[in-house]
Amino acid sequence: MTVTLDLISSSPAEADYDAAKTAACIEACFDCARACVLCADACLAEADHSELLACIRLDADCADLCEATGRILARQHAMDPALAQAVLQTCVAVTRLCAQECESHASRHRHCALCAEACRRCEASCRALLVSVV
Amino acid sequence: MTVTLDLISSSPAEADYDAAKTAACIEACFDCARACVLCADACLAEADHSELLACIRLDADCADLCEATGRILARQHAMDPALAQAVLQTCVAVTRLCAQECESHASRHRHCALCAEACRRCEASCRALLVSVV
Amino acid sequence: MTVTLDLISSSPAEADYDAAKTAACIEACFDCARACVLCADACLAEADHSELLACIRLDADCADLCEATGRILARQHAMDPALAQAVLQTCVAVTRLCAQECESHASRHRHCALCAEACRRCEASCRALLVSVV
Amino acid sequence: MTVTLDLISSSPAEADYDAAKTAACIEACFDCARACVLCADACLAEADHSELLACIRLDADCADLCEATGRILARQHAMDPALAQAVLQTCVAVTRLCAQECESHASRHRHCALCAEACRRCEASCRALLVSVV
Repeated sequence: MTVTLDLISSSPAEADYDAAKTAACIEACFDCARACVLCADACLAEADHSELLACIRLDADCADLCEATGRILARQHAMDPALAQAVLQTCVAVTRLCAQECESHASRHRHCALCAEACRRCEASCRALLVSVV
Repeated sequence: MTVTLDLISSSPAEADYDAAKTAACIEACFDCARACVLCADACLAEADHSELLACIRLDADCADLCEATGRILARQHAMDPALAQAVLQTCVAVTRLCAQECESHASRHRHCALCAEACRRCEASCRALLVSVV
Repeated sequence: MTVTLDLISSSPAEADYDAAKTAACIEACFDCARACVLCADACLAEADHSELLACIRLDADCADLCEATGRILARQHAMDPALAQAVLQTCVAVTRLCAQECESHASRHRHCALCAEACRRCEASCRALLVSVV
Repeated sequence: MTVTLDLISSSPAEADYDAAKTAACIEACFDCARACVLCADACLAEADHSELLACIRLDADCADLCEATGRILARQHAMDPALAQAVLQTCVAVTRLCAQECESHASRHRHCALCAEACRRCEASCRALLVSVV
Protein backbone atom coordinates (compact mmCIF):
# COMPACT_ATOMS: atom_id res chain seq x y z
CA MET A 1 0.00 0.00 0.00
CA THR A 2 1.40 3.40 -0.96
CA VAL A 3 1.46 6.28 1.53
CA THR A 4 -1.20 8.06 -0.53
CA LEU A 5 -3.60 5.11 -0.46
CA ASP A 6 -2.91 4.72 3.28
CA LEU A 7 -3.76 8.42 3.78
CA ILE A 8 -6.97 8.17 1.74
CA SER A 9 -8.00 5.00 3.56
CA SER A 10 -7.43 6.59 6.96
CA SER A 11 -9.88 9.42 6.20
CA PRO A 12 -13.42 8.92 7.50
CA ALA A 13 -14.65 10.57 4.29
CA GLU A 14 -16.15 8.15 1.84
CA ALA A 15 -13.97 8.34 -1.26
CA ASP A 16 -15.81 9.77 -4.25
CA TYR A 17 -14.35 7.09 -6.51
CA ASP A 18 -12.25 3.93 -6.35
CA ALA A 19 -9.64 4.57 -3.65
CA ALA A 20 -6.73 2.73 -5.27
CA LYS A 21 -7.27 4.43 -8.63
CA THR A 22 -7.66 7.81 -6.94
CA ALA A 23 -4.45 7.32 -4.95
CA ALA A 24 -2.54 6.26 -8.07
CA CYS A 25 -3.85 9.29 -9.95
CA ILE A 26 -2.92 11.73 -7.15
CA GLU A 27 0.63 10.32 -7.08
CA ALA A 28 0.94 10.44 -10.86
CA CYS A 29 -0.22 14.07 -10.89
CA PHE A 30 2.35 15.22 -8.31
CA ASP A 31 5.12 13.15 -9.97
CA CYS A 32 4.27 14.65 -13.36
CA ALA A 33 4.25 18.21 -11.99
CA ARG A 34 7.71 17.63 -10.49
CA ALA A 35 9.09 16.11 -13.71
CA CYS A 36 7.71 19.01 -15.78
CA VAL A 37 9.33 21.70 -13.58
CA LEU A 38 12.65 19.83 -13.81
CA CYS A 39 12.35 19.32 -17.59
CA ALA A 40 11.49 22.99 -18.22
CA ASP A 41 14.59 24.07 -16.31
CA ALA A 42 16.82 21.55 -18.09
CA CYS A 43 15.43 22.73 -21.47
CA LEU A 44 16.35 26.34 -20.52
CA ALA A 45 19.90 25.16 -19.85
CA GLU A 46 20.32 23.40 -23.22
CA ALA A 47 22.43 25.00 -25.94
CA ASP A 48 19.48 24.59 -28.32
CA HIS A 49 16.95 26.12 -25.91
CA SER A 50 15.65 28.35 -28.70
CA GLU A 51 14.24 25.19 -30.30
CA LEU A 52 12.59 24.17 -27.02
CA LEU A 53 10.40 27.21 -26.25
CA ALA A 54 7.16 25.32 -26.90
CA CYS A 55 8.40 22.53 -24.63
CA ILE A 56 9.30 24.96 -21.83
CA ARG A 57 5.85 26.57 -21.93
CA LEU A 58 3.94 23.30 -22.19
CA ASP A 59 5.98 21.87 -19.30
CA ALA A 60 4.91 24.87 -17.20
CA ASP A 61 1.24 24.55 -18.19
CA CYS A 62 1.34 20.82 -17.46
CA ALA A 63 2.99 21.32 -14.06
CA ASP A 64 0.36 23.86 -13.01
CA LEU A 65 -2.61 21.76 -14.12
CA CYS A 66 -1.26 18.49 -12.68
CA GLU A 67 -0.66 20.18 -9.32
CA ALA A 68 -4.22 21.55 -9.26
CA THR A 69 -5.64 18.19 -10.34
CA GLY A 70 -3.66 16.28 -7.70
CA ARG A 71 -4.81 18.66 -4.97
CA ILE A 72 -8.47 18.51 -6.08
CA LEU A 73 -8.46 14.70 -6.24
CA ALA A 74 -7.00 14.65 -2.72
CA ARG A 75 -10.23 16.24 -1.45
CA GLN A 76 -12.93 13.64 -0.90
CA HIS A 77 -16.30 15.31 -1.05
CA ALA A 78 -19.11 14.11 -3.21
CA MET A 79 -17.53 16.12 -5.98
CA ASP A 80 -19.86 17.21 -8.74
CA PRO A 81 -19.38 14.48 -11.40
CA ALA A 82 -19.37 17.03 -14.23
CA LEU A 83 -16.54 18.93 -12.50
CA ALA A 84 -14.57 15.74 -11.84
CA GLN A 85 -14.90 14.82 -15.51
CA ALA A 86 -13.84 18.29 -16.67
CA VAL A 87 -10.78 18.31 -14.38
CA LEU A 88 -9.65 14.83 -15.42
CA GLN A 89 -10.27 15.42 -19.14
CA THR A 90 -8.30 18.68 -19.00
CA CYS A 91 -5.44 16.87 -17.27
CA VAL A 92 -5.56 14.16 -19.95
CA ALA A 93 -5.40 16.87 -22.62
CA VAL A 94 -2.39 18.69 -21.17
CA THR A 95 -0.39 15.58 -20.29
CA ARG A 96 -0.98 14.15 -23.78
CA LEU A 97 0.18 17.36 -25.48
CA CYS A 98 3.20 17.69 -23.19
CA ALA A 99 4.12 14.03 -23.73
CA GLN A 100 3.93 14.46 -27.52
CA GLU A 101 6.12 17.57 -27.40
CA CYS A 102 8.68 15.94 -25.08
CA GLU A 103 8.72 12.75 -27.16
CA SER A 104 9.75 14.80 -30.20
CA HIS A 105 12.94 15.80 -28.32
CA ALA A 106 13.46 12.53 -26.45
CA SER A 107 16.22 11.18 -28.65
CA ARG A 108 18.36 14.30 -28.03
CA HIS A 109 17.44 15.12 -24.44
CA ARG A 110 17.08 12.47 -21.75
CA HIS A 111 15.09 14.88 -19.50
CA CYS A 112 12.47 15.11 -22.23
CA ALA A 113 12.29 11.31 -22.46
CA LEU A 114 11.85 11.06 -18.67
CA CYS A 115 9.27 13.85 -18.60
CA ALA A 116 7.30 12.24 -21.44
CA GLU A 117 7.13 9.02 -19.42
CA ALA A 118 5.79 10.88 -16.38
CA CYS A 119 3.19 12.62 -18.57
CA ARG A 120 2.09 9.32 -20.14
CA ARG A 121 1.73 7.69 -16.69
CA CYS A 122 -0.35 10.64 -15.51
CA GLU A 123 -2.49 10.58 -18.65
CA ALA A 124 -3.12 6.84 -18.21
CA SER A 125 -4.04 7.15 -14.53
CA CYS A 126 -6.46 10.02 -15.28
CA ARG A 127 -8.09 7.93 -18.01
CA ALA A 128 -8.37 4.97 -15.63
CA LEU A 129 -10.08 7.15 -13.03
CA LEU A 130 -12.36 8.78 -15.60
CA VAL A 131 -13.97 5.37 -16.21
CA SER A 132 -15.10 5.35 -12.55
CA VAL A 133 -16.44 8.90 -12.77
CA VAL A 134 -18.71 8.50 -15.74
CA MET B 1 -4.87 50.10 -19.24
CA THR B 2 -4.34 47.60 -16.40
CA VAL B 3 -0.87 46.38 -15.47
CA THR B 4 -1.76 42.94 -16.82
CA LEU B 5 -2.81 44.28 -20.23
CA ASP B 6 0.32 46.44 -20.28
CA LEU B 7 2.44 43.34 -19.54
CA ILE B 8 0.72 41.28 -22.25
CA SER B 9 1.06 44.12 -24.75
CA SER B 10 4.78 44.52 -24.03
CA SER B 11 5.49 40.89 -24.92
CA PRO B 12 6.71 40.28 -28.48
CA ALA B 13 4.60 37.11 -28.48
CA GLU B 14 1.45 37.37 -30.52
CA ALA B 15 -1.41 36.87 -28.08
CA ASP B 16 -3.36 33.68 -28.76
CA TYR B 17 -6.66 35.51 -28.24
CA ASP B 18 -8.05 39.01 -27.70
CA ALA B 19 -5.50 40.73 -25.44
CA ALA B 20 -7.96 42.79 -23.39
CA LYS B 21 -10.20 39.79 -22.70
CA THR B 22 -7.19 37.64 -21.86
CA ALA B 23 -5.84 40.26 -19.45
CA ALA B 24 -9.24 40.63 -17.79
CA CYS B 25 -9.51 36.86 -17.42
CA ILE B 26 -6.01 36.50 -15.94
CA GLU B 27 -6.82 39.19 -13.36
CA ALA B 28 -10.18 37.64 -12.53
CA CYS B 29 -8.54 34.23 -12.04
CA PHE B 30 -5.92 35.53 -9.59
CA ASP B 31 -8.49 37.67 -7.76
CA CYS B 32 -10.83 34.69 -7.44
CA ALA B 33 -8.05 32.43 -6.13
CA ARG B 34 -7.21 35.02 -3.47
CA ALA B 35 -10.85 35.47 -2.45
CA CYS B 36 -11.34 31.70 -2.19
CA VAL B 37 -8.33 31.18 0.10
CA LEU B 38 -9.58 34.02 2.31
CA CYS B 39 -13.15 32.71 2.34
CA ALA B 40 -12.07 29.15 3.20
CA ASP B 41 -10.11 30.46 6.17
CA ALA B 42 -12.97 32.67 7.36
CA CYS B 43 -15.37 29.69 7.06
CA LEU B 44 -13.05 27.60 9.25
CA ALA B 45 -13.16 30.36 11.87
CA GLU B 46 -16.98 30.54 11.96
CA ALA B 47 -18.87 29.02 14.90
CA ASP B 48 -20.97 27.07 12.38
CA HIS B 49 -17.98 25.78 10.44
CA SER B 50 -19.43 22.25 10.55
CA GLU B 51 -22.14 23.50 8.19
CA LEU B 52 -19.52 24.97 5.86
CA LEU B 53 -17.36 21.92 5.06
CA ALA B 54 -18.54 21.75 1.44
CA CYS B 55 -17.81 25.45 1.08
CA ILE B 56 -14.30 25.09 2.53
CA ARG B 57 -13.45 22.28 0.11
CA LEU B 58 -14.97 23.94 -2.92
CA ASP B 59 -13.13 27.18 -2.09
CA ALA B 60 -9.87 25.21 -2.07
CA ASP B 61 -10.65 23.46 -5.36
CA CYS B 62 -11.61 26.77 -6.94
CA ALA B 63 -8.46 28.52 -5.69
CA ASP B 64 -6.22 25.80 -7.13
CA LEU B 65 -7.93 25.71 -10.53
CA CYS B 66 -8.15 29.50 -10.87
CA GLU B 67 -4.46 29.83 -10.07
CA ALA B 68 -3.54 27.22 -12.69
CA THR B 69 -5.88 28.83 -15.25
CA GLY B 70 -4.48 32.31 -14.61
CA ARG B 71 -0.91 31.06 -15.01
CA ILE B 72 -1.70 29.14 -18.20
CA LEU B 73 -3.50 32.10 -19.79
CA ALA B 74 -0.47 34.25 -18.94
CA ARG B 75 1.59 32.15 -21.36
CA GLN B 76 1.11 33.35 -24.92
CA HIS B 77 1.99 30.53 -27.26
CA ALA B 78 -0.27 29.27 -29.99
CA MET B 79 -1.99 27.19 -27.35
CA ASP B 80 -3.81 24.14 -28.61
CA PRO B 81 -7.42 25.39 -28.99
CA ALA B 82 -8.87 22.19 -27.54
CA LEU B 83 -6.69 22.61 -24.44
CA ALA B 84 -7.63 26.29 -24.09
CA GLN B 85 -11.30 25.33 -24.29
CA ALA B 86 -10.92 22.54 -21.74
CA VAL B 87 -9.07 24.80 -19.28
CA LEU B 88 -11.61 27.63 -19.59
CA GLN B 89 -14.63 25.32 -19.41
CA THR B 90 -13.24 23.64 -16.30
CA CYS B 91 -12.66 27.05 -14.72
CA VAL B 92 -16.25 28.03 -15.60
CA ALA B 93 -17.49 24.82 -13.96
CA VAL B 94 -15.60 25.27 -10.70
CA THR B 95 -16.31 28.99 -10.31
CA ARG B 96 -20.03 28.42 -10.99
CA LEU B 97 -20.23 25.66 -8.37
CA CYS B 98 -18.24 27.65 -5.82
CA ALA B 99 -20.39 30.74 -6.46
CA GLN B 100 -23.58 28.72 -5.94
CA GLU B 101 -22.27 27.25 -2.69
CA CYS B 102 -21.09 30.62 -1.38
CA GLU B 103 -24.34 32.31 -2.40
CA SER B 104 -26.25 29.87 -0.22
CA HIS B 105 -24.34 31.24 2.81
CA ALA B 106 -24.13 34.85 1.67
CA SER B 107 -26.91 36.18 3.87
CA ARG B 108 -25.14 34.92 7.00
CA HIS B 109 -21.49 35.36 6.04
CA ARG B 110 -20.21 38.45 4.24
CA HIS B 111 -17.00 36.64 3.18
CA CYS B 112 -19.17 34.14 1.28
CA ALA B 113 -21.02 37.00 -0.44
CA LEU B 114 -17.70 38.60 -1.46
CA CYS B 115 -16.23 35.28 -2.60
CA ALA B 116 -19.35 34.52 -4.66
CA GLU B 117 -18.92 37.86 -6.44
CA ALA B 118 -15.28 37.07 -7.25
CA CYS B 119 -16.31 33.64 -8.57
CA ARG B 120 -19.08 35.14 -10.74
CA ARG B 121 -16.67 37.72 -12.20
CA CYS B 122 -14.17 34.96 -12.99
CA GLU B 123 -16.86 32.75 -14.52
CA ALA B 124 -18.05 35.66 -16.72
CA SER B 125 -14.55 36.56 -17.90
CA CYS B 126 -13.80 32.91 -18.75
CA ARG B 127 -17.04 32.70 -20.74
CA ALA B 128 -16.18 35.95 -22.55
CA LEU B 129 -12.77 34.56 -23.50
CA LEU B 130 -14.21 31.19 -24.55
CA VAL B 131 -16.12 32.95 -27.32
CA SER B 132 -12.76 34.03 -28.82
CA VAL B 133 -11.31 30.54 -28.52
CA VAL B 134 -13.97 28.57 -30.33
CA MET C 1 -11.71 49.44 1.46
CA THR C 2 -10.30 46.80 -0.88
CA VAL C 3 -12.05 43.45 -1.38
CA THR C 4 -9.19 41.73 0.46
CA LEU C 5 -9.50 43.96 3.52
CA ASP C 6 -13.28 43.50 3.42
CA LEU C 7 -12.78 39.71 3.33
CA ILE C 8 -10.31 39.78 6.23
CA SER C 9 -12.58 42.04 8.26
CA SER C 10 -15.58 39.75 7.71
CA SER C 11 -13.78 36.76 9.22
CA PRO C 12 -14.50 36.09 12.88
CA ALA C 13 -10.83 35.15 13.29
CA GLU C 14 -8.80 37.75 15.05
CA ALA C 15 -6.15 38.88 12.59
CA ASP C 16 -2.64 38.03 13.74
CA TYR C 17 -1.33 41.40 12.63
CA ASP C 18 -2.56 44.79 11.42
CA ALA C 19 -5.46 44.00 9.07
CA ALA C 20 -4.84 46.79 6.55
CA LYS C 21 -1.14 45.95 6.24
CA THR C 22 -1.93 42.25 5.94
CA ALA C 23 -4.53 42.89 3.23
CA ALA C 24 -2.12 45.12 1.31
CA CYS C 25 0.60 42.46 1.57
CA ILE C 26 -1.71 39.66 0.37
CA GLU C 27 -2.71 41.75 -2.66
CA ALA C 28 0.88 42.68 -3.43
CA CYS C 29 1.93 39.02 -3.26
CA PHE C 30 -0.74 37.84 -5.72
CA ASP C 31 -0.11 40.83 -8.03
CA CYS C 32 3.62 40.12 -8.00
CA ALA C 33 3.10 36.41 -8.75
CA ARG C 34 0.92 37.33 -11.73
CA ALA C 35 3.43 39.89 -13.04
CA CYS C 36 6.31 37.41 -12.72
CA VAL C 37 4.51 34.68 -14.71
CA LEU C 38 3.72 37.23 -17.43
CA CYS C 39 7.28 38.62 -17.45
CA ALA C 40 8.86 35.16 -17.66
CA ASP C 41 6.72 34.33 -20.66
CA ALA C 42 7.47 37.64 -22.37
CA CYS C 43 11.21 37.10 -21.76
CA LEU C 44 10.95 33.69 -23.45
CA ALA C 45 9.41 35.39 -26.47
CA GLU C 46 12.17 38.02 -26.81
CA ALA C 47 14.75 37.69 -29.59
CA ASP C 48 17.48 38.03 -26.91
CA HIS C 49 15.96 35.40 -24.62
CA SER C 50 19.35 33.73 -24.26
CA GLU C 51 20.44 36.82 -22.29
CA LEU C 52 17.37 36.55 -20.06
CA LEU C 53 17.69 33.01 -18.65
CA ALA C 54 18.45 34.25 -15.13
CA CYS C 55 15.46 36.56 -15.33
CA ILE C 56 13.14 33.75 -16.49
CA ARG C 57 14.22 31.50 -13.62
CA LEU C 58 14.07 34.22 -10.97
CA ASP C 59 10.61 35.25 -12.20
CA ALA C 60 9.46 31.67 -11.72
CA ASP C 61 11.00 31.41 -8.23
CA CYS C 62 9.45 34.73 -7.28
CA ALA C 63 6.00 33.75 -8.59
CA ASP C 64 6.03 30.51 -6.59
CA LEU C 65 7.16 32.12 -3.33
CA CYS C 66 4.81 35.10 -3.62
CA GLU C 67 1.87 32.79 -4.22
CA ALA C 68 2.74 30.69 -1.16
CA THR C 69 3.28 33.81 0.94
CA GLY C 70 -0.02 35.35 -0.17
CA ARG C 71 -1.90 32.15 0.66
CA ILE C 72 -0.24 31.79 4.07
CA LEU C 73 -0.94 35.41 5.02
CA ALA C 74 -4.57 34.88 4.01
CA ARG C 75 -4.90 32.40 6.88
CA GLN C 76 -5.61 34.38 10.04
CA HIS C 77 -4.71 32.29 13.03
CA ALA C 78 -2.17 32.69 15.73
CA MET C 79 0.60 32.01 13.27
CA ASP C 80 3.90 31.15 14.90
CA PRO C 81 5.78 34.49 14.90
CA ALA C 82 9.06 32.85 13.93
CA LEU C 83 7.37 31.25 10.92
CA ALA C 84 5.71 34.53 9.93
CA GLN C 85 9.08 36.26 10.10
CA ALA C 86 10.78 33.55 8.03
CA VAL C 87 8.08 33.60 5.36
CA LEU C 88 8.10 37.39 5.05
CA GLN C 89 11.90 37.65 5.07
CA THR C 90 12.14 35.00 2.35
CA CYS C 91 9.57 36.88 0.29
CA VAL C 92 11.57 40.10 0.78
CA ALA C 93 14.72 38.29 -0.39
CA VAL C 94 13.20 36.86 -3.57
CA THR C 95 11.31 40.01 -4.59
CA ARG C 96 14.42 42.13 -4.05
CA LEU C 97 16.56 39.82 -6.20
CA CYS C 98 13.91 39.58 -8.91
CA ALA C 99 13.45 43.36 -8.90
CA GLN C 100 17.21 43.89 -9.28
CA GLU C 101 17.40 41.42 -12.17
CA CYS C 102 14.37 42.92 -13.93
CA GLU C 103 15.64 46.47 -13.39
CA SER C 104 18.82 45.56 -15.26
CA HIS C 105 16.67 44.85 -18.37
CA ALA C 106 14.06 47.55 -17.79
CA SER C 107 15.40 49.99 -20.35
CA ARG C 108 15.11 47.39 -23.13
CA HIS C 109 12.01 45.48 -22.04
CA ARG C 110 8.89 47.20 -20.70
CA HIS C 111 7.63 43.92 -19.15
CA CYS C 112 10.78 43.81 -17.01
CA ALA C 113 10.16 47.40 -15.87
CA LEU C 114 6.57 46.57 -14.95
CA CYS C 115 7.59 43.35 -13.19
CA ALA C 116 10.30 45.16 -11.22
CA GLU C 117 7.67 47.62 -9.98
CA ALA C 118 5.40 44.78 -8.84
CA CYS C 119 8.35 43.15 -7.04
CA ARG C 120 9.31 46.42 -5.32
CA ARG C 121 5.72 46.97 -4.16
CA CYS C 122 5.61 43.43 -2.79
CA GLU C 123 8.98 43.83 -1.08
CA ALA C 124 7.83 47.08 0.53
CA SER C 125 4.55 45.64 1.77
CA CYS C 126 6.33 42.59 3.25
CA ARG C 127 8.79 44.91 5.04
CA ALA C 128 5.88 47.02 6.35
CA LEU C 129 4.18 43.92 7.72
CA LEU C 130 7.42 42.54 9.20
CA VAL C 131 7.53 45.52 11.55
CA SER C 132 4.22 44.36 13.06
CA VAL C 133 5.43 40.77 13.39
CA VAL C 134 8.61 41.35 15.30
CA MET D 1 18.78 6.31 -9.12
CA THR D 2 15.42 8.02 -8.65
CA VAL D 3 13.64 9.70 -11.56
CA THR D 4 14.33 13.09 -9.98
CA LEU D 5 18.07 12.49 -9.72
CA ASP D 6 18.04 11.17 -13.28
CA LEU D 7 16.27 14.36 -14.42
CA ILE D 8 18.72 16.60 -12.58
CA SER D 9 21.69 14.67 -13.93
CA SER D 10 20.42 14.93 -17.50
CA SER D 11 20.34 18.74 -17.35
CA PRO D 12 23.39 20.50 -18.76
CA ALA D 13 23.05 23.02 -15.93
CA GLU D 14 25.60 22.63 -13.23
CA ALA D 15 23.67 21.81 -10.07
CA ASP D 16 23.95 24.54 -7.45
CA TYR D 17 24.47 21.98 -4.70
CA ASP D 18 25.00 18.24 -4.22
CA ALA D 19 22.75 16.59 -6.84
CA ALA D 20 21.70 13.58 -4.77
CA LYS D 21 20.78 15.72 -1.77
CA THR D 22 18.94 18.19 -3.98
CA ALA D 23 16.98 15.40 -5.68
CA ALA D 24 16.06 13.86 -2.32
CA CYS D 25 14.93 17.24 -1.04
CA ILE D 26 12.79 17.97 -4.12
CA GLU D 27 11.07 14.59 -3.76
CA ALA D 28 10.53 15.08 -0.02
CA CYS D 29 8.99 18.51 -0.65
CA PHE D 30 6.47 17.25 -3.21
CA ASP D 31 5.66 14.17 -1.09
CA CYS D 32 5.11 16.38 1.96
CA ALA D 33 2.85 18.79 0.05
CA ARG D 34 0.72 15.85 -1.13
CA ALA D 35 0.50 14.34 2.36
CA CYS D 36 -0.51 17.70 3.86
CA VAL D 37 -3.35 18.26 1.36
CA LEU D 38 -4.62 14.73 2.09
CA CYS D 39 -4.29 15.15 5.87
CA ALA D 40 -6.11 18.51 5.86
CA ASP D 41 -9.01 16.96 4.00
CA ALA D 42 -9.15 13.91 6.28
CA CYS D 43 -9.10 16.23 9.33
CA LEU D 44 -12.08 18.15 7.89
CA ALA D 45 -13.96 14.83 7.62
CA GLU D 46 -13.30 13.79 11.25
CA ALA D 47 -16.12 14.00 13.80
CA ASP D 48 -13.77 16.03 16.02
CA HIS D 49 -12.73 18.43 13.25
CA SER D 50 -13.39 21.38 15.57
CA GLU D 51 -10.34 20.20 17.57
CA LEU D 52 -8.25 20.04 14.41
CA LEU D 53 -8.56 23.59 13.05
CA ALA D 54 -4.92 24.43 13.80
CA CYS D 55 -3.86 21.21 12.07
CA ILE D 56 -5.99 21.96 8.99
CA ARG D 57 -4.52 25.43 8.66
CA LEU D 58 -0.93 24.34 9.28
CA ASP D 59 -1.31 21.51 6.76
CA ALA D 60 -2.34 24.10 4.16
CA ASP D 61 0.56 26.42 4.98
CA CYS D 62 2.99 23.50 4.84
CA ALA D 63 1.61 22.24 1.51
CA ASP D 64 1.99 25.67 -0.09
CA LEU D 65 5.54 26.26 1.17
CA CYS D 66 6.75 22.74 0.35
CA GLU D 67 5.41 23.05 -3.19
CA ALA D 68 7.16 26.39 -3.69
CA THR D 69 10.39 25.02 -2.17
CA GLY D 70 10.31 21.90 -4.34
CA ARG D 71 9.78 23.98 -7.48
CA ILE D 72 12.54 26.44 -6.59
CA LEU D 73 15.05 23.67 -5.83
CA ALA D 74 14.20 22.12 -9.20
CA ARG D 75 15.65 25.21 -10.90
CA GLN D 76 19.42 24.98 -11.19
CA HIS D 77 20.85 28.46 -11.52
CA ALA D 78 23.62 29.77 -9.35
CA MET D 79 20.94 30.64 -6.84
CA ASP D 80 21.80 33.42 -4.43
CA PRO D 81 23.08 31.52 -1.34
CA ALA D 82 21.20 33.83 1.05
CA LEU D 83 17.95 33.10 -0.80
CA ALA D 84 18.62 29.35 -0.83
CA GLN D 85 19.24 29.48 2.90
CA ALA D 86 16.08 31.50 3.55
CA VAL D 87 13.92 29.16 1.47
CA LEU D 88 15.30 26.02 3.12
CA GLN D 89 15.13 27.46 6.64
CA THR D 90 11.52 28.53 6.11
CA CYS D 91 10.68 25.04 4.86
CA VAL D 92 12.39 23.56 7.93
CA ALA D 93 10.32 25.87 10.15
CA VAL D 94 6.95 25.00 8.62
CA THR D 95 7.55 21.25 8.36
CA ARG D 96 8.73 21.14 12.00
CA LEU D 97 5.63 23.01 13.21
CA CYS D 98 3.29 20.89 11.10
CA ALA D 99 4.98 17.68 12.27
CA GLN D 100 4.61 18.73 15.91
CA GLU D 101 0.92 19.54 15.43
CA CYS D 102 0.23 16.29 13.57
CA GLU D 103 2.17 14.25 16.11
CA SER D 104 -0.13 15.54 18.85
CA HIS D 105 -3.07 13.87 17.03
CA ALA D 106 -1.17 10.84 15.74
CA SER D 107 -2.49 8.38 18.29
CA ARG D 108 -6.10 9.15 17.33
CA HIS D 109 -5.73 9.80 13.59
CA ARG D 110 -3.56 7.65 11.33
CA HIS D 111 -3.53 10.36 8.63
CA CYS D 112 -1.87 12.71 11.13
CA ALA D 113 0.75 10.08 11.93
CA LEU D 114 1.48 9.58 8.23
CA CYS D 115 1.57 13.32 7.55
CA ALA D 116 3.92 13.90 10.49
CA GLU D 117 6.31 11.32 9.01
CA ALA D 118 6.26 13.08 5.63
CA CYS D 119 6.94 16.42 7.36
CA ARG D 120 9.85 14.97 9.35
CA ARG D 121 11.39 13.47 6.20
CA CYS D 122 11.08 16.81 4.44
CA GLU D 123 12.54 18.69 7.41
CA ALA D 124 15.50 16.28 7.55
CA SER D 125 16.21 16.54 3.82
CA CYS D 126 16.07 20.34 3.96
CA ARG D 127 18.52 20.33 6.88
CA ALA D 128 20.83 17.95 4.99
CA LEU D 129 20.83 20.26 1.98
CA LEU D 130 21.32 23.37 4.12
CA VAL D 131 24.73 22.03 5.16
CA SER D 132 25.82 22.16 1.49
CA VAL D 133 24.47 25.69 1.04
CA VAL D 134 26.28 27.39 3.88
